[in-house]
Amino acid sequence: MKPTARLIIADSESSADLFWATRFVVPDPILYLEIGGKKILIASDLEFSRAQKEAAVDQVLRKGPLPDVETLDRFLKKRKIRRIEVPASFPFRYAEALQKKKYRVRAVPDPFFPKREFKNPAEKREIVKSLRATEDAILFAIDTIRQTRIRRGRLYLKGTPLTSESLRRMMEIRMMGNGCLARHTIVSCGREAADPHCIGSGPLLANQPIVLDVFPKSISSGYYGDITRTVIKGKASPKLCEMYAAVRKAQEAGISKVRSGVDAARVHQAVVSTLEGAGFRTGNRNGRPEGFIHGTGHGLGLEIHEPPRIGKTSNILKKGHVVTVEPGLYYRDLGGIRIEDVVFVTNRGCEVLTRIPKKFEIEGRPYSC
Amino acid sequence: MKPTARLIIADSESSADLFWATRFVVPDPILYLEIGGKKILIASDLEFSRAQKEAAVDQVLRKGPLPDVETLDRFLKKRKIRRIEVPASFPFRYAEALQKKKYRVRAVPDPFFPKREFKNPAEKREIVKSLRATEDAILFAIDTIRQTRIRRGRLYLKGTPLTSESLRRMMEIRMMGNGCLARHTIVSCGREAADPHCIGSGPLLANQPIVLDVFPKSISSGYYGDITRTVIKGKASPKLCEMYAAVRKAQEAGISKVRSGVDAARVHQAVVSTLEGAGFRTGNRNGRPEGFIHGTGHGLGLEIHEPPRIGKTSNILKKGHVVTVEPGLYYRDLGGIRIEDVVFVTNRGCEVLTRIPKKFEIEGRPYSC
Repeated sequence: MKPTARLIIADSESSADLFWATRFVVPDPILYLEIGGKKILIASDLEFSRAQKEAAVDQVLRKGPLPDVETLDRFLKKRKIRRIEVPASFPFRYAEALQKKKYRVRAVPDPFFPKREFKNPAEKREIVKSLRATEDAILFAIDTIRQTRIRRGRLYLKGTPLTSESLRRMMEIRMMGNGCLARHTIVSCGREAADPHCIGSGPLLANQPIVLDVFPKSISSGYYGDITRTVIKGKASPKLCEMYAAVRKAQEAGISKVRSGVDAARVHQAVVSTLEGAGFRTGNRNGRPEGFIHGTGHGLGLEIHEPPRIGKTSNILKKGHVVTVEPGLYYRDLGGIRIEDVVFVTNRGCEVLTRIPKKFEIEGRPYSC
Repeated sequence: MKPTARLIIADSESSADLFWATRFVVPDPILYLEIGGKKILIASDLEFSRAQKEAAVDQVLRKGPLPDVETLDRFLKKRKIRRIEVPASFPFRYAEALQKKKYRVRAVPDPFFPKREFKNPAEKREIVKSLRATEDAILFAIDTIRQTRIRRGRLYLKGTPLTSESLRRMMEIRMMGNGCLARHTIVSCGREAADPHCIGSGPLLANQPIVLDVFPKSISSGYYGDITRTVIKGKASPKLCEMYAAVRKAQEAGISKVRSGVDAARVHQAVVSTLEGAGFRTGNRNGRPEGFIHGTGHGLGLEIHEPPRIGKTSNILKKGHVVTVEPGLYYRDLGGIRIEDVVFVTNRGCEVLTRIPKKFEIEGRPYSC
């Protein structure tokens, strides 16, 4: 068999694969090679001594001011290597330069490192830590919403309208205080929340679902948390109560199917059937998709979305996977409701890593939904 | 001439080019095409209506659940386009798939959009806003350092050791309160600061330079600020005072050369000569580079480092460029000193956008450096 090199050229911020393989934090692109199971970094003068100290690799080579394709070419020629495997996201500029030098470059479909899907106990602990910071931010947000007063359908905190922007900022500052970096935290309400990607803007409204989807990254470990809760200040209409109950039931149905060896598509199907069984249809209305319009979940780790996906596509779940289960319903006239927890797949089922409760109407009247 | 399409497949977080061209915030990869000056987005069902509302493009097409290479192929075939230009960072996975379909794919060297280098008045204003938040964080840090007491060579704030980590966190929380997201803020001291990429760890020390390099991104506009100050708590040795004075003089020499039409390499050379003239050598010692071991500056905008670079390579500066000027000196036995400001290039020189003063010993005794 002809020798093949696996190659990454990236900084550790943009490539979770590089960070996972080396545990080295590096702000500028560095050359990483794996040849016959040996891990090699080719670092610039500026990074060399830090790489020697900090990178979990077998060898660090030092090559002038910036590692480039010429350096790489000399290195590979010496070892008679002509075949290179790169990640799907590998920058085309480098691939093009290598192709011109007659290397056979092949993009490996994600995951580049299949082992990265399986979280070891230390990784699981880091995810749990990020989840705790996420929970703290959600509880804080719910508490803030609870403290507001309703005036003409809007929420006021100490006399000032509480907006998506201000609540998002308060939550993100709080997470930073807990060592987590959160971006694009979703605080959306009313019609906006019918679009699951809308992060929300403007005054928060009474009697309308408020979606809180929070996914910070730990600054020290790099691992993400990801939790969604939907709450309502004031009174939910019977239709909204039904919708919330359906999403909750669908999530339970999904989680109950998760175990090592099961096809993720079956988990997704359980969610879909539960929502349909409760009378909530998915389809197009006036050219816009509505209902349950996204997948059921995704792997969570050094990336917010990583394999395995839980959706229509076949995908076997295995012990050590950490995945979200996050059904939702979205209708233009009602808004959006989503509930998301994170689970650790085991041989017999799964361990739910999220701890905070689920409650739609947050003012705790009896008999409310 | 055969028709060529310019193509980006990226999300707006990872591609400043995509965001610049469309002003559309999108968390998942989307297809962007430019054909004969016309801007086209091919969006998934989930993003379609938001793209129609928010994206500054000529046309938004909607293509099923996820835009993919097949969709793109049909689109390009209809228009008889066989040549595609992509950014340097274009994911190889897509390029490979297009190459298999016999497209001629070419990576355009950065900048993909040469116009992105030139900041219009609105962009300049956004950079200035980010600089103000950066200045606020630096003044806050200096004030915090000033409030510490020295005990056995270490800085204590209200009885607790002040560390790189705790000061970084305080600064980053403060920036988030000002609508800016800061990561990897450098608070480094002592030997660590002799490595310009080391973000710093552990207790801050008296009588040693503390490098504060702060580069947050505005959450609303996406534009960066970038400022460095170096300060000392206690007393600087005569050697450190000389070193600080040399860096300051070198920065002034660099800034005085900046104007539209000048070669950036001449700006860099002015910095290098000033440092050498002051007796501070650059070179290798015991296999480690020391002295002035990085470039003089870089463009600043939607990316923290973008063209034009100010370094050894020839590069004409032009009106509208926003660049940093940041000489530094790094020696293992002395630590690091760096001073960085941001300037806007004009026809007759440049406008310094940074406002905060420079002072090495922060306790303001007379006759100190």
